[in-house]
Parts: sequence; C-alpha cells; structure tokens
Amino acid sequence: LGAARDPLLVIGCGVVGASAAAGWSAAGHEVWGHDRRELLPLVGRGWLARAVPIERLPEAATVVLALPVGGILAALRRLPFRAGQLVTDVGSVKVAVMAAAAALPQGVAFVGGHPFGGSAESGWEAARADLFAGSTWAVVAAEGDGPAAAARPGEALAAVGELAEELGARPVPCDAAAHDRVVALTSHLPQLFATAVAAELAARDEPLAASLLGPGGRAFLRLAGSSFELWRDILAHNRDEVERAFAAVTARAEKPLEALGEEFELAREWSRRLRPG
Amino acid sequence: LGAARDPLLVIGCGVVGASAAAGWSAAGHEVWGHDRRELLPLVGRGWLARAVPIERLPEAATVVLALPVGGILAALRRLPFRAGQLVTDVGSVKVAVMAAAAALPQGVAFVGGHPFGGSAESGWEAARADLFAGSTWAVVAAEGDGPAAAARPGEALAAVGELAEELGARPVPCDAAAHDRVVALTSHLPQLFATAVAAELAARDEPLAASLLGPGGRAFLRLAGSSFELWRDILAHNRDEVERAFAAVTARAEKPLEALGEEFELAREWSRRLRPG
Repeated sequence: LGAARDPLLVIGCGVVGASAAAGWSAAGHEVWGHDRRELLPLVGRGWLARAVPIERLPEAATVVLALPVGGILAALRRLPFRAGQLVTDVGSVKVAVMAAAAALPQGVAFVGGHPFGGSAESGWEAARADLFAGSTWAVVAAEGDGPAAAARPGEALAAVGELAEELGARPVPCDAAAHDRVVALTSHLPQLFATAVAAELAARDEPLAASLLGPGGRAFLRLAGSSFELWRDILAHNRDEVERAFAAVTARAEKPLEALGEEFELAREWSRRLRPG
Repeated sequence: LGAARDPLLVIGCGVVGASAAAGWSAAGHEVWGHDRRELLPLVGRGWLARAVPIERLPEAATVVLALPVGGILAALRRLPFRAGQLVTDVGSVKVAVMAAAAALPQGVAFVGGHPFGGSAESGWEAARADLFAGSTWAVVAAEGDGPAAAARPGEALAAVGELAEELGARPVPCDAAAHDRVVALTSHLPQLFATAVAAELAARDEPLAASLLGPGGRAFLRLAGSSFELWRDILAHNRDEVERAFAAVTARAEKPLEALGEEFELAREWSRRLRPG
C-alpha cells in the first residue's frame, strides 16, 4: 500500500532537503535534486542521482518541496505539476500550505508534511542522512472532495508516511488546523521569546550573559540564531494562532506570585508527557 | 592563596549539594553533610565523611548552603556562624542573599555562589560528582566595609572559586546586581514562559503537542517540569528585574512583522556568543 514511486524530485536542497535526499538515496530511491545552488557535490556524495533543471518536473513521480514556506506556496501556485504525481512539502505551517494545495490540478495527490528533526545550521553543508532519525514528521491529508483530494487519499498519506519512516522518523497524522495551533505554542512562540530575550541582551550589552547560562537557558537561547528569512514566512502564515498563543501565555506568565503555583502545577503535570516511555 | 579549609559542611544535600559533596570528597576534602533527610546512603557511597546534626556547625571551617533561596536566607539569619568560618551558597538570586549575608557576625567571610550546572531532577538520587563539569559558577564578593566583608575578601573569593574549579566548573566573578539582571532574562523569564506554555497546552488539552516537537521546543518545554517550591523563592526575590525583563521582552516579541527583522538581526548577532570558541 502506497509506496512513493521514483524518481523522487527534491526541490530545495538546503539542510532539510539534502538530508532527506541523502537518506532516501541510502534507502534505495532514485533521488533527483533541484536548487538555485550548484548540486554537483551532492551527486558526488551519492545523495542525489542527478541534479535537474525545473523543466524536468513532469518526469518525477514524487515531488518534495523542501523550501521555506513562502517558496512552498509559490511552487504550489506556479509549478506545472501533472496528474499522477504525488507532491509533499516540509513547511512549518500547514493551513496555508493545504489551502494552496487545494488549487492543484485534478489528479495531483498532495500530502502536507512537517519534519520535526532539524538543524540550527542551514545549507546542504550541514546535512546528514540521519538528521530525522528518532524525530516525528507530521503528515496531513488533503480534505474534502476538491481536486486536491487524491483519488486514494489513504494511499498518498501512507506513501508520505513511509518516506518519513525511511529516514528513521515517525509519521504523525494530524489535521492542518490542529498542527498550526500546537506549533504556535511549542515552536513559534518560543522562537519569538528567544529572539526577544537575545535582542534585549544585545541592546543592554550585558557582558556576563553568555557566561551565566545553565543548560536550559543555553538551549533556549540557541533558538535566537534562527534566520528571519525562514521565520518571516512562518509567522506571517500563522499570525492568528501566534497572536492567540501570545495573549494566552503572557496572561499566565504575568500572574502574581500567589497565582503562579497553579500554573507550575499544570505545567509540571503536562511536562510528564515529555518523558520517554 | 585562599584554599577552603576542612571540614567542609554542606547544608542541604539535594541534587546540587550531594553532587558538590561527591566531587569535593573525590578531590580529597573532608565533607560533612546536614539535611532533614537521612544521609547514611551518601556516607556509604563515600560522598560524605559523616552526616552531622546542625549543632556541629561551629566545628566546620567552610559551610556551603545548598538550599532553595528561602532556606539560604533563613540560614543566614538564624544559624550561629562563628568568626573564622568561610560561608558560601548556591542560590539562584544574589542581591537578596548578599543583603542577608551583610548581617552575619563580624569575622564570618561570605562569598555568594551560583552554579550553572544542574539537573532537571531533584534529590540526591539524581546527584553525580561531575554534575558541574564544564559549567560556570558565579562568585560574588561581599562589598563595603561592614562585617560581611571578609578581612581578606580576595582570599575568600579565591577559596570559593577554587571549590568550583575542583568540581570542574569555571568561576565567574560578578556583582550581585549584574547577576540578577542577567538571570532574569536568561533563566527566570524562560522558566516563566515555559511554565505558561505548558500550562496553556494542558488547559487546551492538545493531544498532539508532545509529538509535534523538535529538539529546540523539547528543550524549552523540559523547563516546565521545574518545581514551584524552588521557583517561588527565586521569583519573589528577583521580582523587579523579572518584571522589567518581562516588559522589555514582550514589547519586542509583539512587534509587527515588519519590525521583527531588526529583532532577529540583533538576536542572531548576540547568539554568536553562544558558540564554543
């Protein structure tokens, strides 16, 4: 049921696309790559069977859009996908992506994807075949009976789930709205806070700040190295949920000390879900 | 210059106190422990030379207050320290601790301390001799010419710095106000945000949230497992700086998208200080 067919074309070979290409090549797929950057080094490493111009898109059986969210949306609107192709993406927001995919031509099967493994670095120089091992990978089926819904949607979902599994990831089926609600809290808001804390440290010029850090604070502040180029798109396309999350979280965080005990209790109870097993 | 003399009494043998005791014993110190919990298992492991009642406090040459901040403040006010003792602490706030230490009897040398290694777990069961290896350890000299200022303050600071080094940590001399300003941003505010995000996830009952997490979000949300017992004291005794940090950071985080590019730029520049080397 539902194995993705080759050749598999990865559009966008940064750290995510190149890592996935490396893993899929290792799993035996014929992987093609397209990027504005020169991809011959990836062919040399055996991560890609070939680097192709975008004109060869119709020859691909499976297409992975490994671009920033803005690039994914533009590709869905502009590229000439053909009936029979399976298309997926790796974008950090899903409602906007699924809406754009709903306008794909009849017969193109689309499944939204979002890998939760990753790297703070960017570019294929930071890629590795096991980047997604042990992580989760959200997979979102197209809904409704419009053209975006595949003839056999379960089959398309299973095929993309299998692609994730071939990289050592665990596919997590979810709907686009639930995905975007959750990541507003667990990813987009932490990114905004880490950026704001680091910007405040920079503005205050506290020379001791990088020394007075424990492992938790250091992990949190590492987020501040993220690129605005990626985050502008994410924040723009999940604005409502991020604003709702911001209001709810700051209201809890600014409660008086007497009321914070209950917040810590709720939070500690929730955090037990993070423990393995 | 300034080696801490034995016996070294660790008051409070939770994860921090027991880990330090284990490391100091391994380094050749005679370490005594005091705790409301039974400490014979720590003697059995060779982490303590003996467990003592608090009445034996006067026999200690060096005293380490490894308690929550409220316990440290109470100990500084109530315990009968004697002239000639070197006293230090491990509290996460320093202005309040240094103020309490200023009322110690003449001849007691006090140096504030704050180890940045640590564990999300609590209790000596989670302790290990290398808990602080590779981390930093803030050391704060008593100021002014009051009784809290040691006869030879440089010597006391060096002795506590050496205790940190014996555990593999790097002592970072700083003043109490700078310490509290910095940790409000790098530790206390991230804790409040993580608690508030996890509490909001619990309240919304988002079943997918623990699955849709990357390494950064997971590290951030692990903070939500912290105990309010510890944090109530910390937040109560650094309230002004935490409120100032909260106002500054939320103002940056809620800027419109067009203005966020500058924040990301400042933050990314600052985050380069986190890179090793």
